Amino acid sequence: MLERYKLGEQDKIRVAEGALRETIILMFEKMGVPRDDCRLAADVLVSADLRGVESHGVSNMLRMYIQGYQERQIKIDPEWRIVRESPSTASIDCDTGLGIIIAPKAMEIAIEKARNVGVGMVTMSNGRHLGMASYHAMLALKHDMIGVCMTSTPPSMFPTFGAEVRLGTNPIALAAPADKEAPFVFDAATTVVAANKLGLARRLGINLPSGWVADSEGTPIMEEVAPPIPGSEGPQSHLLPLGSTREMGSHKGYGLACIVEILSSVLTGGGFGAKFGRPNFNHYVAAFHIEAFMDTEEFKQTMDEFLQTLKSTKPAPGHERVLYPGLPEAECEIEYAVKGIPLHPEVVEWMRNTCNDLSIECGF
Amino acid sequence: MLERYKLGEQDKIRVAEGALRETIILMFEKMGVPRDDCRLAADVLVSADLRGVESHGVSNMLRMYIQGYQERQIKIDPEWRIVRESPSTASIDCDTGLGIIIAPKAMEIAIEKARNVGVGMVTMSNGRHLGMASYHAMLALKHDMIGVCMTSTPPSMFPTFGAEVRLGTNPIALAAPADKEAPFVFDAATTVVAANKLGLARRLGINLPSGWVADSEGTPIMEEVAPPIPGSEGPQSHLLPLGSTREMGSHKGYGLACIVEILSSVLTGGGFGAKFGRPNFNHYVAAFHIEAFMDTEEFKQTMDEFLQTLKSTKPAPGHERVLYPGLPEAECEIEYAVKGIPLHPEVVEWMRNTCNDLSIECGF
Repeated sequence: MLERYKLGEQDKIRVAEGALRETIILMFEKMGVPRDDCRLAADVLVSADLRGVESHGVSNMLRMYIQGYQERQIKIDPEWRIVRESPSTASIDCDTGLGIIIAPKAMEIAIEKARNVGVGMVTMSNGRHLGMASYHAMLALKHDMIGVCMTSTPPSMFPTFGAEVRLGTNPIALAAPADKEAPFVFDAATTVVAANKLGLARRLGINLPSGWVADSEGTPIMEEVAPPIPGSEGPQSHLLPLGSTREMGSHKGYGLACIVEILSSVLTGGGFGAKFGRPNFNHYVAAFHIEAFMDTEEFKQTMDEFLQTLKSTKPAPGHERVLYPGLPEAECEIEYAVKGIPLHPEVVEWMRNTCNDLSIECGF
Repeated sequence: MLERYKLGEQDKIRVAEGALRETIILMFEKMGVPRDDCRLAADVLVSADLRGVESHGVSNMLRMYIQGYQERQIKIDPEWRIVRESPSTASIDCDTGLGIIIAPKAMEIAIEKARNVGVGMVTMSNGRHLGMASYHAMLALKHDMIGVCMTSTPPSMFPTFGAEVRLGTNPIALAAPADKEAPFVFDAATTVVAANKLGLARRLGINLPSGWVADSEGTPIMEEVAPPIPGSEGPQSHLLPLGSTREMGSHKGYGLACIVEILSSVLTGGGFGAKFGRPNFNHYVAAFHIEAFMDTEEFKQTMDEFLQTLKSTKPAPGHERVLYPGLPEAECEIEYAVKGIPLHPEVVEWMRNTCNDLSIECGF
């Protein structure tokens, strides 16, 4: 049933990674963003698309970022700065700069601190959208570190037993290196599904499965249901926490969302999302230096063994194999780098039109 | 329906906190455990019972610990030691000492490191049962720190799409202080439910709800089902990850369990749980010094505001109020401290008989 949420490959247009990357750079440059930051932003977006995380690639996010710059919701050249610092921590004020550009720099600070004292942890207040959280977590991998990233997003989740939105989709990402296996990369919202799955279901004209949303009174809908009407704040537009119902553990998804809100919002000094008038996205990144805990080679070899054990699990009926977080994304990355990234025709058209409007050349 | 999983209060015997504590101390002393460690062990167990976390109090765990000491599975006076250290990290070899006694000491090390450099993180290999994970996380609260604790437990979870156990219930705990409100304290298994709920359902003669377990082939059972037969490795004895089915996000519960396995087992140097012949429980604790990130008072006041916002959420039909993690446990603690801790008659009888066998006086 999950396959229904993917457009057939035949409906999409394959765009070469390099051409997509160069076009994004031109678009960000036209906004006035410094060249190096344009490259970084393009890398975050293209990495998401390469890994098959379409929700955080150009299709959904690029137009939001361009619009944000044009409407001055996002600062083009923010004066972000460290407002407090210790040997293993830093707090950054993002000055409403885009998260996809500031978070990688925050992660570099965390990595440097982890190299010096074992662990580095950086919070970011006053921010804007972070993009794919695992991009930032994965920056730690090449330094033989474990990377963590979380971000607080605007409220869309009903807490367990509740009938008002109080928390965002608040994702958690963690990346850990292996030796020969593709790295372990977890990246998931603490809601049952990401918010954009509701809009996708509507566009595809299909029902939402059981357990994704609550009705407007707060009762979990445990049967198939029509997707919400666009712009509606009414029925079916409120996400349930991971676990769906109290009996199946929704208090755990709710609690995990609170943890993300505490670490990546309250602890930044930026308040919390459910507070009226707070439009910020605040963030948290961390790096753990493996060598500070144990021998790095032994860690990576044990990771290989662990991941191989997961992969070789006997599958349940109807399933070909057991995956681990990061494995399908790594496989996708290899395929898309060769065959091109499949984009919806509407997205390609939007990019071509926008390039035309901005008087820049679209690379495809 | 959840209420069916609690015995009626009228069936239980109220035991005064102090009497229970003193009796546990005598039992541990009789095992040969040093006096200070006996006090610590009793505090971990009684704290769980006081907070209503019966699964990790005397009812389930005390007899396992006593049996473990008697069978020499747990060392009475382990020579635990730090095997690697950096300004923000330490790795401890537990020498098969009981986790409820070593983890608080590891947390004190983490707290000291957090005070010095902002963050402290300690892993523990070669360990035994940790008790209630949030006990150790909560030790950070009085130091105005955020505390984290995780522990890897023996495999009982089928990974998403899988038909062999690969991960434990692998809980995550995080405690964060507030000002006037009860602290935020999250503590939850990454399976839908804790393993002992299956045995409890069997004892009460009731069915398991939809979404808790898989059949022996690995297919999630999404309807009410009879609990497993004692000692059976067959149908209904395999826990599903939080999320229950792939469509409702079980890959997230599975991934979170992997994170716990990586941080609290692979990163300790102690391997991983699914490796044949590995009976260890390995652990992870961390402390984040709030003052290293922001003004502590501002953090605690914002936490109050955040927790009050959650509590004041309009409830869904059939529910009186919205809770937050740690709130019901804090209320329980106040009540049980006054009225006594309700214990099942069978537990009281076991304690009285065991005291008799050990020639010590039972305090109730």
